[in-house]
Amino acid sequence: MISDPVSNVSEEILLRSDQDGVATLRLNRPSRFNALSEAMLGALQRELVELKDDQTIRCVVLGGSGPAFCAGHDLVEMNGHAEEDYFQRLFAQCSEVMQAIRALPVPVIAEVHGIATAAGCQLVATCDMAVAGRAARFAVSGVNLGLFCSTPAVALSRNIPPKAAFDMLTTGRFIDADEALALGLVNAVVDDAALSASVAAKAAVICSKSPEAIRLGKQMFYAQAALPLADAYRYAADVMACNMMSTDARQGIEAFLTKRKVLGAV
Amino acid sequence: MISDPVSNVSEEILLRSDQDGVATLRLNRPSRFNALSEAMLGALQRELVELKDDQTIRCVVLGGSGPAFCAGHDLVEMNGHAEEDYFQRLFAQCSEVMQAIRALPVPVIAEVHGIATAAGCQLVATCDMAVAGRAARFAVSGVNLGLFCSTPAVALSRNIPPKAAFDMLTTGRFIDADEALALGLVNAVVDDAALSASVAAKAAVICSKSPEAIRLGKQMFYAQAALPLADAYRYAADVMACNMMSTDARQGIEAFLTKRKVLGAV
Amino acid sequence: MISDPVSNVSEEILLRSDQDGVATLRLNRPSRFNALSEAMLGALQRELVELKDDQTIRCVVLGGSGPAFCAGHDLVEMNGHAEEDYFQRLFAQCSEVMQAIRALPVPVIAEVHGIATAAGCQLVATCDMAVAGRAARFAVSGVNLGLFCSTPAVALSRNIPPKAAFDMLTTGRFIDADEALALGLVNAVVDDAALSASVAAKAAVICSKSPEAIRLGKQMFYAQAALPLADAYRYAADVMACNMMSTDARQGIEAFLTKRKVLGAV
Repeated sequence: MISDPVSNVSEEILLRSDQDGVATLRLNRPSRFNALSEAMLGALQRELVELKDDQTIRCVVLGGSGPAFCAGHDLVEMNGHAEEDYFQRLFAQCSEVMQAIRALPVPVIAEVHGIATAAGCQLVATCDMAVAGRAARFAVSGVNLGLFCSTPAVALSRNIPPKAAFDMLTTGRFIDADEALALGLVNAVVDDAALSASVAAKAAVICSKSPEAIRLGKQMFYAQAALPLADAYRYAADVMACNMMSTDARQGIEAFLTKRKVLGAV
Repeated sequence: MISDPVSNVSEEILLRSDQDGVATLRLNRPSRFNALSEAMLGALQRELVELKDDQTIRCVVLGGSGPAFCAGHDLVEMNGHAEEDYFQRLFAQCSEVMQAIRALPVPVIAEVHGIATAAGCQLVATCDMAVAGRAARFAVSGVNLGLFCSTPAVALSRNIPPKAAFDMLTTGRFIDADEALALGLVNAVVDDAALSASVAAKAAVICSKSPEAIRLGKQMFYAQAALPLADAYRYAADVMACNMMSTDARQGIEAFLTKRKVLGAV
Repeated sequence: MISDPVSNVSEEILLRSDQDGVATLRLNRPSRFNALSEAMLGALQRELVELKDDQTIRCVVLGGSGPAFCAGHDLVEMNGHAEEDYFQRLFAQCSEVMQAIRALPVPVIAEVHGIATAAGCQLVATCDMAVAGRAARFAVSGVNLGLFCSTPAVALSRNIPPKAAFDMLTTGRFIDADEALALGLVNAVVDDAALSASVAAKAAVICSKSPEAIRLGKQMFYAQAALPLADAYRYAADVMACNMMSTDARQGIEAFLTKRKVLGAV
């Protein structure tokens, strides 16, 4: 519980609700466009640590309350500091949150409405998947204030083609949901009214799969991508052979073959 | 010649036909959706070894007989084994086939109809180019059976944007030919009736070029991609200078200049 | 000043005009489709060295005079040489020009009309951003002459999906402006009559930002992309903390907060 300096209403800045194996984290400083204050980053870190070891959770949804998904860092808070080492710690903390999302054993889906700017856009890029409402808009707009979105660039440039990333970072311009989809920043665009249901449906699909396969799959996906091709294949082949030893895979294949005796192939 | 366990008809599981410098390999277990059994992988390995040293071949087309391009591994065969080291060998063998396609000195074009799933989708991602019939559908659907498509992920994640690859791998969902085109998994989508002719036309274009330039080009293309920028440029500049020493390049430039004396530039 | 062998008119082969912080470099051998002769590459090198230290310049535009943006190397000149070490030097020189564009502290925007082929297409891929006229066409067509576009492949394969790059390089086929946009080779396609104005508008946007933020941003963008994720984040966080110490950022944030006291977030 922290005191919100604008609304002066005491409230939880990060809400978590669990249902049917899906943990929904909701950034909850609507009056501040869910800015990533130190307190918000700390709250995210704590939840991500808890989620890491929670075997009941199969998928995480990350959304925001109020008019926006997330508008990036908290400029009011930043404006109260002047020392470089404060900002080193702040941006390091933010980078740790992003890498904790990546390191979480289960998939994280961004549910994006309104605006996702600066580190808010970085959150979208960082999540494993993202679904956007049709009215959502994205920017890495720090350059408009003289503060180039350097840490957001790390995530963004690993998600969309380089010229598009360079353009967004140096012009600060907004892109709409359809452009975000075409660039690969989000997986799908849906009617705003259908956003939550659409994300819930995708989370339910994830939850319908073998939890073991999903967990080893997410870890493998990012680990192999950092390896040269031959190493990636050696590693992935071993992971897959290990996966075949699981009860889920043995039973999954058995059930499939029983059902489709005539055809026999996946 | 192996005995097909379903149809009980003895047949070649991999057909090869050569014409005008193009070798067409056709997976031929239609009743099993051309599943990549050990025998099929072995047959592919043998043909790829032969093709590697065949100077008469300038381009390879990889297609499938029957209703599907390829539905991935042979689950019936896999279901007959329980030892992890069997699966390590199997997935290593499959990875070797994929890397042999990449290492083949001439371009390989996937001709994709019906479904391309799991290691079948990996084959499409692995080929240098791919053309799909409009009705083709693609999935890395092992997760549906509890077996995450780990080795397919190696090829897929090097072809399409990361969020799209993650989505396909964790949801197992099918994408249609148009989505595959938008993502970069295939080069073109054509009417199903025109698929073979379209692939043949692309192969004929490749065959019309200098074989030496195509061979050094394919090798260079993948080798430079694994290098840092400055190293890539040093390497590519040397390859290109060497290429200029070839009779094909000297004559090609001469002929071009003769034809376009007035303009003079490429 | 060199004597053009076709038109026999003595002229500057590379024009530079500066206005409002934007330096426009215009390749100016229209009768030769702005071919990259040794003289042209040398002229580009000299201008890029000058621009590197020119603090009055905030953005560079690279365009071409006459019917084409750039048709690649000068085949007439190349045809006058036979020694491999000549070509090693030539392609190394060309690679240095490309890397100098990348290393320039300010953004470089390609203004593309007509054709951009071979090393001309490489120029487009190399620039930080590119805007194309609707009639522009792109190819890496050296393969048509037996000379695989090896050094262009270095830039192209770092801009567009691998199958699309492989296709262009081995078939030599032209793509139109819309395909170039879909692939990520250019940032925007505009009416040919609006091309210069559109590029000027984008350059003006860049010039409206903090020069310090843009300069550190460009350098950071490419440096972080070559690092593993954790290293990239450490580096970017330090760059961004340093950026926060700048007067531009302090004042930019102050001004923003003053203007939007009610909302407070970026």
